[in-house]
Amino acid sequence: MRLREESSTVQVGPEADVVMSSRIRLARNLAGFPFVGRASDAQRHEVLQMVTRAPLGQAFGGGLTWVNMAQTTPQERQLLVERHLVSRHFADSTVPRTVGVDAEETLSVMVNEEDHLRIQTILPGARLDHAFERARLFDQEIESSIDFAFSARWGYLTACPTNVGCGVRVGVMLHLPGLRYTGEMERVKRAAKDMHLAMRGFYGEGTEAVGNFYQVSNQLTLGFSEDDLLRRFTQETVPQLVEYERTARRMLVESNRPLLEDKVFRAAATLRAARLLGSEEATKLLANIRLGICMELIPDVSLELVQRLLLQVQPAHLARIDATATDDDKGRIARAALVRRALRA
Amino acid sequence: MRLREESSTVQVGPEADVVMSSRIRLARNLAGFPFVGRASDAQRHEVLQMVTRAPLGQAFGGGLTWVNMAQTTPQERQLLVERHLVSRHFADSTVPRTVGVDAEETLSVMVNEEDHLRIQTILPGARLDHAFERARLFDQEIESSIDFAFSARWGYLTACPTNVGCGVRVGVMLHLPGLRYTGEMERVKRAAKDMHLAMRGFYGEGTEAVGNFYQVSNQLTLGFSEDDLLRRFTQETVPQLVEYERTARRMLVESNRPLLEDKVFRAAATLRAARLLGSEEATKLLANIRLGICMELIPDVSLELVQRLLLQVQPAHLARIDATATDDDKGRIARAALVRRALRA
Repeated sequence: MRLREESSTVQVGPEADVVMSSRIRLARNLAGFPFVGRASDAQRHEVLQMVTRAPLGQAFGGGLTWVNMAQTTPQERQLLVERHLVSRHFADSTVPRTVGVDAEETLSVMVNEEDHLRIQTILPGARLDHAFERARLFDQEIESSIDFAFSARWGYLTACPTNVGCGVRVGVMLHLPGLRYTGEMERVKRAAKDMHLAMRGFYGEGTEAVGNFYQVSNQLTLGFSEDDLLRRFTQETVPQLVEYERTARRMLVESNRPLLEDKVFRAAATLRAARLLGSEEATKLLANIRLGICMELIPDVSLELVQRLLLQVQPAHLARIDATATDDDKGRIARAALVRRALRA
Repeated sequence: MRLREESSTVQVGPEADVVMSSRIRLARNLAGFPFVGRASDAQRHEVLQMVTRAPLGQAFGGGLTWVNMAQTTPQERQLLVERHLVSRHFADSTVPRTVGVDAEETLSVMVNEEDHLRIQTILPGARLDHAFERARLFDQEIESSIDFAFSARWGYLTACPTNVGCGVRVGVMLHLPGLRYTGEMERVKRAAKDMHLAMRGFYGEGTEAVGNFYQVSNQLTLGFSEDDLLRRFTQETVPQLVEYERTARRMLVESNRPLLEDKVFRAAATLRAARLLGSEEATKLLANIRLGICMELIPDVSLELVQRLLLQVQPAHLARIDATATDDDKGRIARAALVRRALRA
C-alpha cells in the first residue's frame, strides 16, 4: 500500500486557529443491488468491480489508487484510519471492500462501507466549498457510468435513514480549547444538539474529544438540499463556532491568564523533556502547544509542525517513521524521541 | 510565634541520597497525674506549669522557647506541622497544650499531646545517634526536677500500651523512589511489617507516601531497651533499607533508564514551566528532581535547594514567604512562581 509521505491536512488552511479541516461525505448506493449489510458476497464483489472500473476523467488523474482492504495489514488499515481516509468501522469490517484515494489524498472513496459508496473529501482549514466541489465532481463523473438508487420522493436512498435525501454529511474538525478551559463547552454542546448538529471526538462517533478536537457535522439530511446544508454550515454554523471559540480565548487571556499559560508552557516543556510518551498524551500536549501558538505564547514552533506531529505521534504513522517502535513500550520511547527532535529543530 | 527562617532538615546530612532525616521521640508522663486524655483541665494546666518551669542547663540555652498552642493562629499551627515540630493530632487538639523548641529547632517538646511529654529530636540525614543523645540529654535534665511515671516491671508508663517500656520511637524519613519505580515497594513493605516496623507517609500515621517519602519507625517498645532499639536501627534497619534502595536505583539505570529519565526530566521541565502548582504535585515533582540529582542526571540544582523547596512549597511556609498566597488559587500561582524563580537561579 502506497500513501503520501504526509497527509494534506498537515497544511495550514483558512481560519486555522480554530478550524483544523473541512470534510464532505456523500452516501451513494448502486441501483439494483441490496444494501451492503443485506447483499451476498458475490453482489458485494460485483459492486466493487463496477465502481473500481468506472472511468474517471482528468480531474482524478484518470483514476484513483484502489486499496483492497482484504490485502492490507492491520498496520496499514490503522494508517488509513489515522489519516481519516477510512472509518474505523470500514477498517474493522470483514466484507469485501476497497478504498480509492486520489493523488493528493484529499478524496477517498470507500466501497462497501455502510453504503456501497462513501465519497469523502477532506481539506485543511475552513474550505467546505472546495471540499464539496471536489466531492460533487467525483459524484458526477461516476454517475455518468453507474446508476445510483434514487427516489423522486426521498432522494438518494441510503442504508441508514439519517442519510436519506441528499446523502450529504458536511463536517468540520474544530479545535476548541478556549471553550473547554472557560467551562463553556457544555453550553455549546447543548446548543449544537438543539441545532441538530453532531459533536464527536477525534475519530468520530463514540470517541472522546482528546486534545479538545471536535468533529461537528449535520445530523439530518432528509428535506435539506445539499446547497442548504452547505450554506448553513459555511455561513452560519462554522463562523458562529469560530467566533465563540475566539471569544472564549480572549476571555481566558483577560481573566485567567495563569491557567492558559500553565496549560501551554507545561505542554511545551513536557514534550521537550519526556522520554516516554503515549499517543493520547502526545495529542493532548500538542493540542495545548497549538493553542499557545495561536495565542502567540510559543514563538519558536510553527502551526504546521504541530499539525505534522499530531499525525506522526499516532501509532501506525510512528511505526512507519521509526522502525524501532515495534510495540507499545518501544513506541513510547520512539514517540518521545521523535517529538523532542522535532521541537528542538 | 517566632520560628527560624529555615528548618535544620533543609541541610544535607549523611546518606542524604536515601535518608532525609533521623528522628527520636520519647514518651514520658508525670508521676501523680492522670494521663492527658483522663486529666481535668486544671491538672493539664498544672502539668504545663511544671514542665515549662523546669530549669534547663546550658545545653538548651537555659531554656526552650515555649509556644502556647491556644494563642496560635491556624496558619502558625500548620507551620509547626509542616516543620515536623508538632504532630497533626497536637495541632488539632483542644486541650491546654504547649510546645517548646530549642534554638536550632532540632528538639521540640510537646506538652499534653497523647502523653504529658513528647520529647522529639530531628536531624538531617542518618544521624540517629546524635538525635538520640540530644533527646536523652533533655530527658535527663528535666528528670532532675520532675518525677516520671515509671514501673520497675514495665518501665515508663504511657497512655498507649505500644509505647510502654523505654517509651522510645526511633525513626527515619527515607526517600525510596527506586523501590517504588522498580515495583519492589510492596515486598519491602511486607518485610517491614514482619520486622515490626511501621512504614508511613510524609506526615505520619494514615497519610500517603507523597513523593515516595516514607517514615520508618519501630512499632514495639516493651521488652526492648533504648540501646537495643537504637543499635538495631542504626546497624541493621537503616543500612539495609538504604542498600535496598540503592540497588533498586542501580537496577533502574541499567534496565529501565527511559523510565528514570522520563520521571526526572519531566519533573524538572514541569517545575520550570508551570504557572499553577499545588503543594502535593510540587512535592512529587521535587522528589523526582531529588532522585535526578542523586543519579547525576540534574547537574545544575543542589540537593539543599530541593530540600528547602520541599519545605517552602507547603501552604503555611509559602504564605510566610509570599504574602499574595492568600487562598488556594493564589497559592498555586505563588507556589509556581517561587519554584520557577528558585530553579532559574
